Amino acid sequence: MASPIADKPWAKLVKFVQNEPRRIIHSFKVGLALVLVSILHHFRPSFYGFGENIIWAVVTVVIVLELSVGATLGKGLNRMLATGLAAALGFGTHRLASLCGKNGKDVLISAFLFVIAVTVTYMRFSPRLKAKYDYGLLIFILTFCLVTLSEFTDGELLRTAHERLLTIIIGSLIAIAVCVCIYPIWIGEDLHNQIAGNIVKVADFLEGFGDEYFKNSENTEVVVVAHDKPFLRSYKRVLSSKSAEETKAVLARWEPCHGRFRFRHPWKQYLKIGNLTRLCAYKIEALSVYLLNSDQTPYELRSRVEDPCKNISLECGKALKESSLIVKKMAKSSAPNLYVRHAKNAAESLKSVLRANPWEGADPMEMVPAATVASLLIDIVICVENISEAVDELATLANFVPPRGIVQPITSSDDDDSAHVITVNE
Amino acid sequence: MASPIADKPWAKLVKFVQNEPRRIIHSFKVGLALVLVSILHHFRPSFYGFGENIIWAVVTVVIVLELSVGATLGKGLNRMLATGLAAALGFGTHRLASLCGKNGKDVLISAFLFVIAVTVTYMRFSPRLKAKYDYGLLIFILTFCLVTLSEFTDGELLRTAHERLLTIIIGSLIAIAVCVCIYPIWIGEDLHNQIAGNIVKVADFLEGFGDEYFKNSENTEVVVVAHDKPFLRSYKRVLSSKSAEETKAVLARWEPCHGRFRFRHPWKQYLKIGNLTRLCAYKIEALSVYLLNSDQTPYELRSRVEDPCKNISLECGKALKESSLIVKKMAKSSAPNLYVRHAKNAAESLKSVLRANPWEGADPMEMVPAATVASLLIDIVICVENISEAVDELATLANFVPPRGIVQPITSSDDDDSAHVITVNE
Repeated sequence: MASPIADKPWAKLVKFVQNEPRRIIHSFKVGLALVLVSILHHFRPSFYGFGENIIWAVVTVVIVLELSVGATLGKGLNRMLATGLAAALGFGTHRLASLCGKNGKDVLISAFLFVIAVTVTYMRFSPRLKAKYDYGLLIFILTFCLVTLSEFTDGELLRTAHERLLTIIIGSLIAIAVCVCIYPIWIGEDLHNQIAGNIVKVADFLEGFGDEYFKNSENTEVVVVAHDKPFLRSYKRVLSSKSAEETKAVLARWEPCHGRFRFRHPWKQYLKIGNLTRLCAYKIEALSVYLLNSDQTPYELRSRVEDPCKNISLECGKALKESSLIVKKMAKSSAPNLYVRHAKNAAESLKSVLRANPWEGADPMEMVPAATVASLLIDIVICVENISEAVDELATLANFVPPRGIVQPITSSDDDDSAHVITVNE
Repeated sequence: MASPIADKPWAKLVKFVQNEPRRIIHSFKVGLALVLVSILHHFRPSFYGFGENIIWAVVTVVIVLELSVGATLGKGLNRMLATGLAAALGFGTHRLASLCGKNGKDVLISAFLFVIAVTVTYMRFSPRLKAKYDYGLLIFILTFCLVTLSEFTDGELLRTAHERLLTIIIGSLIAIAVCVCIYPIWIGEDLHNQIAGNIVKVADFLEGFGDEYFKNSENTEVVVVAHDKPFLRSYKRVLSSKSAEETKAVLARWEPCHGRFRFRHPWKQYLKIGNLTRLCAYKIEALSVYLLNSDQTPYELRSRVEDPCKNISLECGKALKESSLIVKKMAKSSAPNLYVRHAKNAAESLKSVLRANPWEGADPMEMVPAATVASLLIDIVICVENISEAVDELATLANFVPPRGIVQPITSSDDDDSAHVITVNE
């Protein structure tokens, strides 16, 4: 199936770049930043009188430039601040120790070193500090050691410390500038998209579940193949997404206002939505066992709860897709509430179907799996409602506005992602 | 309730240390390592002729010394190896560029810098390299920059590079020695204990579930309070433990043979057990909803499946506890298989109870939650069997031996963690 164009080397290259543009662009950004700093190193701005210390700008660029703006800003600010503070404290210690004679000085410096290292290392374990300032605390210890152990006289030391701090600031600024100015990768936006994407993954399963479970097929093989459909498996990645989301939320807090995100965007609310989505995914994981073994219950028995169950899963799926659209487009909408209401109505009608004892006289062993599916689906409606409420809360906290137009959800059951007719008023 | 002894300052200190000994001891280890290296810095072993370069030993100690042996060894080896390789490559580049005249040299060095930075940064994204060598790749770029941008003559450069490499090796060795010799924290052991602990957390829930769900109480409040019991909530921490386990498994591979762990201990099998335990925890998460709402079904209806359900959850809990004991004590045992067999028998008897239509004539809405619980419990038996098989596989892979004595599992239902009578043959 290879088209002739794919055989040309440049086409291969284009395809390669298209596959993971972020990583390739980031790699080139690192290369560029290093060339920039090596040019600076070559010309050594003589008006500042940098000597060998300019090399610290190179070190800083290599270490500070990270994939995302949040990580780069966090590291850069940590490095600048920690270097400044530690240099000041170190200089004070060095000065104080100098007053105690040669031998006293060495003992005193070792003692200070010990106390500072123990205290700051212990501080690094504090969850609150670890999240935002871990790198800064490490650099604090490092700089404090370098300054106090230095054998310069006070005057030389002050000049060196001042020069190094300046080169570290220059290095950090180059790294930050390259990171922000060329194809910036905002980790906040990443988190935003991940949360919206996770909701869609759960929604995909729910939208597909009804049709798969209530398939009238005596052939088991077909059912197994059905479970291999990607939209019935993609929710699995949601199950273990917690730590990635938490890391992203911490880094996102470093990012300034960009695009549609303010500086103090409510990132914590994203974590709340993420947790609720995961709770729903756990339920789906339990549900998926019954999808795999749907042949335990003959279709004849399954079909007795088919309509309300299909409605629940379909409406839940739609509600989640609308919720994810609110997040994705940052546009307030009441569409999820409508589908949640539909789902709740479907749950009520499922309950009344159950009350009428649909499986009277059936083999209980064949009936129990279907009853479990019904029960889990009723449970999932609550999860979906919670998600939609949390998304509403996010819309309020982040001041999402309704889209400029009338949103008119379509209630037919065979529409997909683009379940909107938007009449723009302009 | 404060005892008089608790008011004394030293008692407070002891309590504080007892609460988190690891963190405090690690902090003191960092302080000690820095004092050691500052003494080295003070005496500057003149036979090696270290100049200012000794400061790199200080930098290395601060950066390499991590909480666990695995992390410290990984960082230390990465740092030493990457510095050596990058220095050699950088020296070659520097030499090659020197042949091209002053201007050609600068252009050539910038070009090399760019290519190396782009390539190595891109390599850092490879999941396989990222896991074990991320820090080494960073140090490789850093050292390569420092060496190629240096303005020393070839002879000076060789001497400086040699000195720095030696100080970095000294620094790494000091860090590794302090980490390994004083109260070492083995991350492999950590992973080992975490996996065993997670199995226990799931087992705790299962052992407690039967009694809680089948409580005959018309008083809803009591049921809610029951859900607040810690052993019914501790499994929640298992749900999101995946990334921590994976990190630990990567670091554990750096650790040499220690205690009962070989160098090539099958850490990957721990991850497999962890994943299976999480699958079981997802099911439990679905089950816990019905525990919270157990009043949906009157006790009269619940009691009709009480015996087999209680047996399943109890035997599953025991099987898991025995499996966790195999992991914890690294002693092969067939006890879990016995309990798994009991659990499977209980599942069969539950199925035959269900076949006899225990809820004939009952309100289906009251009956469905109880049927769901029964169905989920049958499902959990399979999860538990998988966990016990994976633990067996671990016992084989890691050559666990049976304990020296006869293990005689007690089958009475009211025993706890210590469900063993071990008759030592000596």
